[in-house]
Amino acid sequence: MRVPVERLRDVVVGVFTSLDVPAEDADVAAWRLLEADLRGRTGHGLIRVPQYVPRLENGGINPRPDITVLRPTPVSGLVDGDNGLGQVVMTQAARLAIDKAQASGMAWVGTVRSNHAGAAGVYTAMALQSDLIAIYMAVGSVNVMPPWGGREPLLGPNPISIAIPAGEQPAFQLDIATTVASHGTIKVLAQSGEQMPEGWAQDREGHPITDPLRADEGFLLPIGGHKGAGLSMAIGLLAGLLNDAAFGSEVIDHRAVSDVPANTGQAMLVLRPDLFRDLDAFKSAIDEQLGEMRSAGPPGSVHIPGEDLSRMEQEQRREGIDVPEKLLAQLAEVGTRLGVVVPWSG
Amino acid sequence: MRVPVERLRDVVVGVFTSLDVPAEDADVAAWRLLEADLRGRTGHGLIRVPQYVPRLENGGINPRPDITVLRPTPVSGLVDGDNGLGQVVMTQAARLAIDKAQASGMAWVGTVRSNHAGAAGVYTAMALQSDLIAIYMAVGSVNVMPPWGGREPLLGPNPISIAIPAGEQPAFQLDIATTVASHGTIKVLAQSGEQMPEGWAQDREGHPITDPLRADEGFLLPIGGHKGAGLSMAIGLLAGLLNDAAFGSEVIDHRAVSDVPANTGQAMLVLRPDLFRDLDAFKSAIDEQLGEMRSAGPPGSVHIPGEDLSRMEQEQRREGIDVPEKLLAQLAEVGTRLGVVVPWSG
Repeated sequence: MRVPVERLRDVVVGVFTSLDVPAEDADVAAWRLLEADLRGRTGHGLIRVPQYVPRLENGGINPRPDITVLRPTPVSGLVDGDNGLGQVVMTQAARLAIDKAQASGMAWVGTVRSNHAGAAGVYTAMALQSDLIAIYMAVGSVNVMPPWGGREPLLGPNPISIAIPAGEQPAFQLDIATTVASHGTIKVLAQSGEQMPEGWAQDREGHPITDPLRADEGFLLPIGGHKGAGLSMAIGLLAGLLNDAAFGSEVIDHRAVSDVPANTGQAMLVLRPDLFRDLDAFKSAIDEQLGEMRSAGPPGSVHIPGEDLSRMEQEQRREGIDVPEKLLAQLAEVGTRLGVVVPWSG
Repeated sequence: MRVPVERLRDVVVGVFTSLDVPAEDADVAAWRLLEADLRGRTGHGLIRVPQYVPRLENGGINPRPDITVLRPTPVSGLVDGDNGLGQVVMTQAARLAIDKAQASGMAWVGTVRSNHAGAAGVYTAMALQSDLIAIYMAVGSVNVMPPWGGREPLLGPNPISIAIPAGEQPAFQLDIATTVASHGTIKVLAQSGEQMPEGWAQDREGHPITDPLRADEGFLLPIGGHKGAGLSMAIGLLAGLLNDAAFGSEVIDHRAVSDVPANTGQAMLVLRPDLFRDLDAFKSAIDEQLGEMRSAGPPGSVHIPGEDLSRMEQEQRREGIDVPEKLLAQLAEVGTRLGVVVPWSG
């Protein structure tokens, strides 16, 4: 069923404000979630709301955080999220990184005591609006695989997003987990009743798992074997440990534990392209280069990261977001319980 | 055959100086190449000397570059390598990034008109000596795969290295190509007469190639399918296009073309960890975290990127580098032709 974006926003804001989140923060969190859906990252959108609710109710997430910036320098800052909603904390961190990069040329902002912040690409997209390059990394909110060769799951699907502004053409926007498939993607398959292909997950004896509901029984597989596992570890060290945020055995499964703060860490680097080339020349060169990449195969065959996002977003803003029945029912149930008007319920 | 490191250095320096490279630059280039061998990255070490020689002889590489820094800011610089040896240009760029990061907290230095600079990890390792975090990216010196879904090879195996200092334990040092296997690794297999496993390369019809001598007939495969192809593209844009260096169809195969400058681009980011945590606490935390990762499986089973490097390097510095007969013969041939004394020849 297609639901208008504003209507979904109202429900999400209603849910969060009923749990004592200030209206402005609820709006920020709702938009970051909806932007994930609008970009087709449905595993990090509305589907997460029913997960956040028990954490807001039971103390895992602080609805009214006092977010502060520790150790500020002209090129950096450490945002202490006070266990607030990840989308609220990370939005503030992204804005800080953007402001500092505009003033200093580049900036690296980390977060500590943050929470699951959803789709990586929505934060790097914020920098694109100011013609800035951005790289975002996060410690995944559940450990899904061991370090390469090991048996205990100590690594998350730690994602990285890289956004690079273009001129007339769509910007380059990479948004990938370091696992072959993300938990979000698997969650979407589980809701639709589909199977996973082999190569996404395996059990502790190394046999493939193809039932998405059984993914938690084993491990997800990293991209490129030891390479993806190493990249995941690097991201965990840079986005987590460097900020004194949780990594390794300190990471709790936020889906299973509602009363313990997650101490999630994220990091965002923002860079002004005009440090290296005049901005207009740079943007034209990106247009031309991505056009060349696009021409490396028959029309429509080449995948340029981010190319379809703005078309997909515009179409859904116009026609509404196509929300699966099961998720609509979950949102209706949560909303009704919290006294929020849910237009599609009853 | 084991050859003492200093003896190998003398031969490489002799080869480069005989081709008009100043002694100091020849020494720098020789060490970056030997450091690759010492770290087990044999695909980017001495094996490259016979490739660089025709380029130095025929104008592809400028033996006496006038290396300058364009657009300097406190956090950045663009090193114009004047087509010098990549190792010489990149060493200067890495030093600049390290100096600027020490003064400003972080820095991003790019290169333009550089050349193949060998193993990514030798540059990030330079930053470790000053307890700095470093990320290095480079445009590969030959296109080996199409953008995802395409048919024309416009992407290199564009590598990334991430180095993070530790305390008492070995530092974290990731050094990976965005292809499942690098050209260097394949070159080593070709010299030893071994076959490649399936999944490394495929022909234009999508069939696996397992003969390393036939790898050039088809494409290498990216890690994680579209994810690795996207990461390779991001690295090409950040290390190449951003610096006005070659990317896409502008990249020449430096192994096949000796008289055309390659205009290779690299980028290195250096970050002071004490922007986010006190240095000693950070280094202890890294020791502890990597120790925990190591304990995720039976002793010796877990792969921590970089863990074996210093042991491998010390052993080879003591015992000499184990150089394959075929490469020794190639070096002897090149050296003898250029009037360099090669101890193991004749």
